[in-house]
Formats: sequence, structure tokens, C-alpha cells
Amino acid sequence: MTLRDEIREQPAAARRQLEASSAPLDAVARRVREEAVSDVVIAARGTSDHAAIYGQYLLGVRNQLSVGLAAPSITSLYGVEPRFDRSLVVGISQSGASPDVVGVVEAARRQGAPTLAITNDPGSPLAAAAEQVVDLAAGPERAVAATKTYTTSLVALVRLSLALRLPSPQEQSAVEGLPDAVAAALDAEPAAAAAARAIAEADRCIVLGRGFEYATAREWALKIKELAHVFADPYSAADFRHGPIALVEPGLPLLAIAPSGVTSAGMRAVVDDLTAAGAESVVMSDDASTLSRARHPIALPPGVSDWLRPVASIVAAQLVAYHLTLARGLDPDAPRGISKVTRTL
Amino acid sequence: MTLRDEIREQPAAARRQLEASSAPLDAVARRVREEAVSDVVIAARGTSDHAAIYGQYLLGVRNQLSVGLAAPSITSLYGVEPRFDRSLVVGISQSGASPDVVGVVEAARRQGAPTLAITNDPGSPLAAAAEQVVDLAAGPERAVAATKTYTTSLVALVRLSLALRLPSPQEQSAVEGLPDAVAAALDAEPAAAAAARAIAEADRCIVLGRGFEYATAREWALKIKELAHVFADPYSAADFRHGPIALVEPGLPLLAIAPSGVTSAGMRAVVDDLTAAGAESVVMSDDASTLSRARHPIALPPGVSDWLRPVASIVAAQLVAYHLTLARGLDPDAPRGISKVTRTL
Repeated sequence: MTLRDEIREQPAAARRQLEASSAPLDAVARRVREEAVSDVVIAARGTSDHAAIYGQYLLGVRNQLSVGLAAPSITSLYGVEPRFDRSLVVGISQSGASPDVVGVVEAARRQGAPTLAITNDPGSPLAAAAEQVVDLAAGPERAVAATKTYTTSLVALVRLSLALRLPSPQEQSAVEGLPDAVAAALDAEPAAAAAARAIAEADRCIVLGRGFEYATAREWALKIKELAHVFADPYSAADFRHGPIALVEPGLPLLAIAPSGVTSAGMRAVVDDLTAAGAESVVMSDDASTLSRARHPIALPPGVSDWLRPVASIVAAQLVAYHLTLARGLDPDAPRGISKVTRTL
Repeated sequence: MTLRDEIREQPAAARRQLEASSAPLDAVARRVREEAVSDVVIAARGTSDHAAIYGQYLLGVRNQLSVGLAAPSITSLYGVEPRFDRSLVVGISQSGASPDVVGVVEAARRQGAPTLAITNDPGSPLAAAAEQVVDLAAGPERAVAATKTYTTSLVALVRLSLALRLPSPQEQSAVEGLPDAVAAALDAEPAAAAAARAIAEADRCIVLGRGFEYATAREWALKIKELAHVFADPYSAADFRHGPIALVEPGLPLLAIAPSGVTSAGMRAVVDDLTAAGAESVVMSDDASTLSRARHPIALPPGVSDWLRPVASIVAAQLVAYHLTLARGLDPDAPRGISKVTRTL
């Protein structure tokens, strides 16, 4: 299995995750309801931290929950356990072996909080620490760069959101269509490869997203850094004007996720401004008018709901990172200096 | 007033903030106690977001509060108000004019949550939105790059922590010594200037910090980006090994805050590894042995407590960014493309 194989396996992996037993999530939802839990703490590192950011938007917008991302070092370095006893605490880790993520979930469970592990290894320390476990069931991920464990983590969070508030018929059918949307995103490969070749000379770039797609921008930038060794600087378009906009100069690649919906106008304005300033724009969108403004357009499948689209859009983004790696003469299956499990000291 | 003047004004600004009336913070603390609030949500953008990260560690470690950073777009873009009614909600904004930060605080107050504004403009919309207000009293900040409003925001958070749990005599005297520690950090200027000249050719760099100093790494990187136009990529040393370590190559500047204390061993290990890999290390520390490993050591004032040191260490970091800007032939008082207030759409 190569990285490209694992990227292409994601529609099937997403389908497996959607069809998994909902028993652990129903049990979590029961406690959340009975104990009137109104806030969620998510502990994660690296790629899983980007899944956590998606969870913050998803559970915030769809479930009106206040979601915060834990700083696991507070427990692992300073030996202090913040009070989690009125929160739902979720740990996300593909390996389930990150000790500081495990530490947060252990502390929360000791305090009596409902706890949930989302992991690709149901025999891991994280799974043992949590009261309930969602097995990502992504299958073995051999490439060092995480792909299918990221998309299945997003799908697991979708299932958590649905367990906490039942879907409308429209939502239900949108969710059922998700594996097809992920498969459709694979069709972006030729456009992704062309865009990657066009920006292959640059050793730095800006990545922008907003709202639900902010997580995608973060994860896209990480994939570009770890695989293609390009300094990819991810921003929410909202924060970008606070200072980093000073970095823009002619020829700088600007990678943006600018789909239809509530973020559309703001994202278009930033893309227009930066393209006018000479940035080499690579834009992923499901909107023809937005795509027409980009030097390198990458079409996303149309008709995917805002809150579900990140599961599909990251797949097109992974393909850009993969082809950028090849275009720069590097091996996507042997990235430099990375090991699969991080054991934070 | 130039940027350098404002950097040098920070000991006096910190002292003013320390000596301000504690009435609004005492009122917040009373509600937190009476209503058994156990979690805190902080809404902020840009530089203030880095103050929020410091607040997460400070209130987590010293007050055992679970602190999350809000995603203000959930309200401003999607029109949804997460449930904040059992949280303390803090908005941080030097101008007090960021509409989406104001939106979070307004929503929380409507829901009946205790709310606190930390702002340099007590007549701002943020101040009007919150039940209690801490005036940063930093004086007018004319440079576009925020400096003294950042350090005074940190001091305001220290005062919040003290109001929530009274200081021990040792803590009290450490806090009283803080303006002197900030003044001592200004003595780092010659070393900061020398380090800046040594790395001035590079157009990208890595910035590392951990624990309390993770906020410093984030803010240091932002200052370097907005002033010196160098792609500065900030990481927690914990996340760094997950992937971005692939970016390291001979000659790449590595900027690290590696003080004594619980983060010391881990930070040293990363600095040693990256220096061995050929990185051009610029290390800020109060520990002689750590400094001796760096190509470009910058001594921080000794004897400052872990939880207070970020107020001093960012001052030395600002001096590196300032001198890097000069060394690259740019004007620190006229940065490109940035306006002082961000009105997020």
C-alpha cells in the first residue's frame, strides 16, 4: 500500500466508518443528555488536532456545544488536572498511543466525566482509558503521512454530532451520500497534479480556509510540509489580515479552499486581493465563479453540505500535496524525519 | 513613538497594569466562586489569540480551570450561539473593535454567563458588551505591530488568576518583581541584534516553545512575519516531531525559547537534534548550560517563575524581530499591508 493507494481508499474507509455500530456514541449521547453536559474538550496532536478543529465547528454549529481544544501539556508537563467533570472529553489519536492525549482522557474519566476515544487501534492505551471507544476501522495505515485516519476521524465526529441530535431527513441523506462525495473528490487528481507542477519551484506558500474548512487548511498545510518540504503557512482568512498578509509577494503560491456558502464572499475577497498582488492562486471550490478567478482552479464535487464538505475537500488537498511531492523530486512514501507515533516527553 | 520606544515602554506599562484597581477582577472571581464555574472560554484574534493561549496554560496550571479558545466564526459566520451559560467568557482585543470577538461576549452575556473584556479602549464595543472590563492602560499604541498591549494582556490574565486564587507570599513577591524582569529582558538587545544579523539572509525559520512559552513562540513568529516578512513557522516542541521536522535542513534558522524548568529537558533535546542537523540555532534561555549549546544565545533574566516568564521573554523576542526587520532593510514602523483593527467579515 502506497500513500496514493491510501488516499484512494478513503471512500471505502468513510463508508465503513459510517456503517459502524452506533452503540458507543449512543451511550455518550445518553450521558450528555442526562447530565446536561454543555461543553466538550477534545485532546489531540498533529493531524488529529485538525480533526479536533473540525469537531469544534461541527459540534458548535450543529449541536450548539461550546468546544475547546485541550492543552495536554498542562497535565503531562505540569502535573495538573483541570476540572473536566462537567464536560464531555474526547481523545483523538490514530495510534491511540500519544501519552499526553491518554493523560487528559484518564484524568477526565477519574473525575467522572463522560469520555470517548476515537482511534484506529481499539487495543491502544487511549481506548483503554476512555469509557466509550469509536474504532476508526480505517485499516492499517502504512504511509507515514496520515490520510484515511484523518477522514475517518471526521466521519466519527459527524456520527457523534448525529448521536447528540438526530438528523433531519435531508441531513440523513446528505450523510449517506458522503462516501460518494469523497469518491468524487478523487476526480480532482488531474487538476491537483497540474496545480502542483505549477507551484513546484516555490519553497513557501500560504494556505487559507475559513469556518468548517479552516481545519482543511491546517491539515493541507501539514501534508505539504511533511511530504513536500514546503513551508506552508495556514490561516483562517479572518486572522490573515491581522499581519501575515505582509508576507505576500508576487509569485507566492496561495492555496485556498473557497467553497460556496457563508464563507464564500469573504474568501473570494481575500483571493482576489492576493491574486491582484501577484500571488499564484490555487483555489479549490464547488463554485464556478470562484474557480474562474483562480490561476489554478480545482473543482470540488457540487452539492455537498457545508458541514460535511471537509471530509471530501481534504482528499483533493491530499492529492495536491502528493503531486507537489513528486514534482519536487521527493518520495511521498519515505518522508524525511517522521515517525508514525509521537511519544511526547 | 516608534516601535522600539513602545518595546522599551513595557516595564512601565506592566507596572501600571499590575497597580490598576482589582475591583472588576474581584467581581468576576465572586461570580466564578458563587456559581461554581469550572471552565473558561477566551475569544480573541491575532496577537490577542496568543495572550489567550497563555491564559489557557496559566488558568489551567494555577487555577485548575479547563480553558478553551472560542472559534468566533461559529457565531459571526454561522449565526449559532454555543451554550456558554456555565462558563466564564473572556474577550481580549487591544482595540475592542473586532466584531466577532464582541459577538461571542455579547452572546455569553445574553445567556447570563460572567463576562470579562480585556482591552486597551474602555470605550470600545467589547468593553460595552462585557459585564466587567479590565483597561490595559498601555497608553496609545501607535506602531502597527502590537507589543505593549500584548504584555499588558498577559499581566491582566495574571491578575485574573490571582483574583481567582489568592497568591502565596512567594507568588506575591514574584508578581511584584515582574516589571523589573521585563526591564531586565530589555538588556537582551545586543544579543538579539547579533542573532538577527546572523540569520537575516534566510526567508524562512522555525520557532519552538513549550508549555507556558508556547504562546511566546506563536507571538514571536507573528512579529517576525508581519515585520521582517520571514516565513516563521511556530510549533510546540511536542507537535514538531509529528511531521514538520521534515522541514529542517542545514542553515535553517531555529528560534527556540528553552528556559529552565519542566520544559527544559524536552526543549534541549529538540535544540540539540536540530543543531546537529545543521540548523542555525537562536536560543533564548535563563539557563547557562542550554545557552552554551546555541550558535546564537540570548540570555533571559534569571529567577523568574515559569508562569510569569512569558511576560519577559516576549520582550527579548520582540527585539529579535525588530532587529531582523532592520537587518533585512525593512522599516519596522511601516509594515506592509497591515491595518491596526481587523474587521472580520
